[in-house]
Amino acid sequence: MSPPMPHDSDKGKIEATEIGQLPAVKPAVQSEWPLALDLSHHLSVESRSREKSLLKLSTSYLTGDSELLSLAAGLPSVSLFPIEKIAVSAPTPKPATAAGRSEGVWRGDGLLSDLNQLLMEKDGKAKGYTNYDLSNALQYEQGTGAKDLLKFVKEHTKIVHNPKYSDWDCILTGGNTHAMETVFRMILNPGQGFIVEQYGFPETFEALRSLQIKLFGVEVDDEGMRADSLRELLSTWDVEVRGLERPRAIYLVPTGQNPTGATMSLERRKAIYEVAVEQDLLIVEDDPYYFLQMSEYVPGSDFQTVNVPKLNSEFLQTLVPSMLSIDTQGRVIRLDSFSKVIAPGMRCGWITSSARFIERILRHNEVGLQFPSGMSTAVLHSILQNSWGQEGYLDWLVNLRAEYTSRRNALLCAMDTYLPKEFCHWVVPSAGMFVWIKVDHTKHPHHHRGISAIEVELFHASIANKVLILPGAWFKVAEADATGVYFRATFASVSPENMMTAIKRFGEVLNCAFR
Amino acid sequence: MSPPMPHDSDKGKIEATEIGQLPAVKPAVQSEWPLALDLSHHLSVESRSREKSLLKLSTSYLTGDSELLSLAAGLPSVSLFPIEKIAVSAPTPKPATAAGRSEGVWRGDGLLSDLNQLLMEKDGKAKGYTNYDLSNALQYEQGTGAKDLLKFVKEHTKIVHNPKYSDWDCILTGGNTHAMETVFRMILNPGQGFIVEQYGFPETFEALRSLQIKLFGVEVDDEGMRADSLRELLSTWDVEVRGLERPRAIYLVPTGQNPTGATMSLERRKAIYEVAVEQDLLIVEDDPYYFLQMSEYVPGSDFQTVNVPKLNSEFLQTLVPSMLSIDTQGRVIRLDSFSKVIAPGMRCGWITSSARFIERILRHNEVGLQFPSGMSTAVLHSILQNSWGQEGYLDWLVNLRAEYTSRRNALLCAMDTYLPKEFCHWVVPSAGMFVWIKVDHTKHPHHHRGISAIEVELFHASIANKVLILPGAWFKVAEADATGVYFRATFASVSPENMMTAIKRFGEVLNCAFR
Repeated sequence: MSPPMPHDSDKGKIEATEIGQLPAVKPAVQSEWPLALDLSHHLSVESRSREKSLLKLSTSYLTGDSELLSLAAGLPSVSLFPIEKIAVSAPTPKPATAAGRSEGVWRGDGLLSDLNQLLMEKDGKAKGYTNYDLSNALQYEQGTGAKDLLKFVKEHTKIVHNPKYSDWDCILTGGNTHAMETVFRMILNPGQGFIVEQYGFPETFEALRSLQIKLFGVEVDDEGMRADSLRELLSTWDVEVRGLERPRAIYLVPTGQNPTGATMSLERRKAIYEVAVEQDLLIVEDDPYYFLQMSEYVPGSDFQTVNVPKLNSEFLQTLVPSMLSIDTQGRVIRLDSFSKVIAPGMRCGWITSSARFIERILRHNEVGLQFPSGMSTAVLHSILQNSWGQEGYLDWLVNLRAEYTSRRNALLCAMDTYLPKEFCHWVVPSAGMFVWIKVDHTKHPHHHRGISAIEVELFHASIANKVLILPGAWFKVAEADATGVYFRATFASVSPENMMTAIKRFGEVLNCAFR
Repeated sequence: MSPPMPHDSDKGKIEATEIGQLPAVKPAVQSEWPLALDLSHHLSVESRSREKSLLKLSTSYLTGDSELLSLAAGLPSVSLFPIEKIAVSAPTPKPATAAGRSEGVWRGDGLLSDLNQLLMEKDGKAKGYTNYDLSNALQYEQGTGAKDLLKFVKEHTKIVHNPKYSDWDCILTGGNTHAMETVFRMILNPGQGFIVEQYGFPETFEALRSLQIKLFGVEVDDEGMRADSLRELLSTWDVEVRGLERPRAIYLVPTGQNPTGATMSLERRKAIYEVAVEQDLLIVEDDPYYFLQMSEYVPGSDFQTVNVPKLNSEFLQTLVPSMLSIDTQGRVIRLDSFSKVIAPGMRCGWITSSARFIERILRHNEVGLQFPSGMSTAVLHSILQNSWGQEGYLDWLVNLRAEYTSRRNALLCAMDTYLPKEFCHWVVPSAGMFVWIKVDHTKHPHHHRGISAIEVELFHASIANKVLILPGAWFKVAEADATGVYFRATFASVSPENMMTAIKRFGEVLNCAFR
């Protein structure tokens, strides 16, 4: 009886408390840097328990033996999928040589140039006029997601972040919310602690609480999470007092954070990373707004005119380095998404981390999401690879951030005009979609009522005055104290006219309440 | 301070061991039947802990006040999504009046009629020539998935299954593998027991084991899980001996089961349901092959000729009723998928169950998958609703099952021709994609070596003879004993010629080994 079937040797051995032997992962060496550290002691019981699918093994028999006939794979027949062709109309981004861009100025002239029609057919490759077979998009795919698109995002990741260890890898996801759930389940056991920014996206906190994770919010300032506060929390951790082990991972939105709009400087990023190395932490870097980093705001200037980098290489230089790009040990699990830069309906993004972690996510995908929609990855691939290419995608991103910069400037202009500076403060966000407005409650005539009461009062008064602007408490990690009265305003998809009117109304509410 | 913000009253209260108060779910009454039972005591700690997203609440302020200006929703701008139009070329299924179909005969004449071009545009509705806006597919969507497609699948579910309680509901999923993970996490806590069929899809078992679920495989016969064995397992359950509580839920693939090909008769389904009521069980009905129920196999007949129902109403009469359709209490959580009937690359399906359970899944979607790809749901909607309609979809399914029936008949014809009947047995599958071949190891010259050794030997001998056919052990729930030597063969996407050659080779292996 040789060799044994995998089933007989590997199955049925996992116990709830047992920490299994993880498979050796063949590193797909991407550079000359050293290998990542083995940080697999951070993996959850669930993640450690995941095994390679037996059925996936059966495909290994088929490789390299063209005479072998298979009655094995239960795949439906491609000929029976009722979609023969898909044509996508997509614009070509203005290149660096276009009028305006070549002068380093964008003048509100829109993003859309002539539309290209991108065609996909079931047997497109055989017909020779496309390099993409729609058949692949319609059929079952590996747990990595569509290989062609995965190749594109790996190249893009190399160009933009150039990771500093050699065995990094990527895997496609169903967007960052899905990626978060996947990563949280990979590195957290129920009951564990986890570190987040004091203010953040409430759905992230919801996701974590339902996994029975205890959240610790670290103080934030204009540059996001404070490294000194993080170090203090961890270095003074007392298991007896806290009633649980020291958290072993942190979650960061380092660029254009939601809701605070804060972007961490390179120095802050390095300081946080230093604490992570010191304290053996993993860093979940959720970075959907990375490419919405904006040029400077000049008060009083025309918001329809925005400076843009003339060359894509200059554009890349203007971007603050990601946590991934400064990670030399494989501590960062980076989440990228197409939601803010192409379209959220794609439900597609990717994770970059050490090959060891990517392999664990692959095992999860195989028995969960399986892979992001073939319709999404086919459309993305046809635009990004077949039409634009890496340079064209960077051209797109340059134009896109000019659009969002213009919108941000319009909101800031309205705020400069209508908000009372005596008790309203904000930092100009250098990335993202949000401005975080601090209202100085100590100047409120009834400030003794406290932060929370004043915030609620202003929120309801705003609605009565026909403007919806979200209160800071909605974004506060519940376990932390409120540090002030805050409101989050977004400029992502509001017209300049409506921004003006809405901010005017909010200013009226504040002036009325503080009088 | 009135009224309080939801944040202040609801947050930060969930403890790992606390069982929270679930929200009242307003039943969307779908019929005159009574309401489902409240079976929420089956929910896992994780599922109970899920809370309604605060940001989702903010949209309630916007409803009904057209003057309210919002700076709230951080949605990217639709004008910046680089996809203006999508055109899908899809066939129209042959209607009941078509040649052949109207005589009740299908003659291998293919599925594809003239292609229709289905157009979607960002502002298609405004332009008036389509009822679908591509903008909706590109933007963020609610956790239910695309509302238009959800409406279609609800109508379809009503037509096909007509549930027997009034507050049933549906939610879109990322395909059945994703739906399974979602449902398992909703009803199972780590360490609990769960009941499965003795032979099943290995990736289902992998998914459950990584969640630290202890599996109990119930004996199957030609009609799938035996109701008497299920009752015996549960009614004789001894917590002391077993070391854990009695399982509270079962997983079934009732139609065209993978790998056994078994389809449960209506009587068997009723018997299983009766045990579920008796023992207070939930039933996860995973039914991707429901519409691949086939017409009779007549040995020796031309496999290119298949009887088909002349009318769609007759077609529906031929289908064995689902577990959902006999459920009067809301115990069944039914999983449907477009993977086998449209295309797996869609990664889209839907769950049907009581409104109470669907609400819990919605809460999970909001912080996980979010919603199935807008590209997938837009393509599905354009084909199913805009082009075919409910009747056209049934026409498609009638033709599709004729195609699979023809393929099954071709495989059975090869097996009749080449497999030695003295020690090879199979039941003609009435649904699905698989034939389960039992090889009588007691007739093997070295049968004392045992089931497992003989199966492995035959598997390797088959590969050596250039045919890949998967051994029964790969599908066995690890905790159960092997009951015989089995092989699974699929007819889903193999040409009749290759089926003939492959089965001939497998027959040679058997004849050689048993001589």
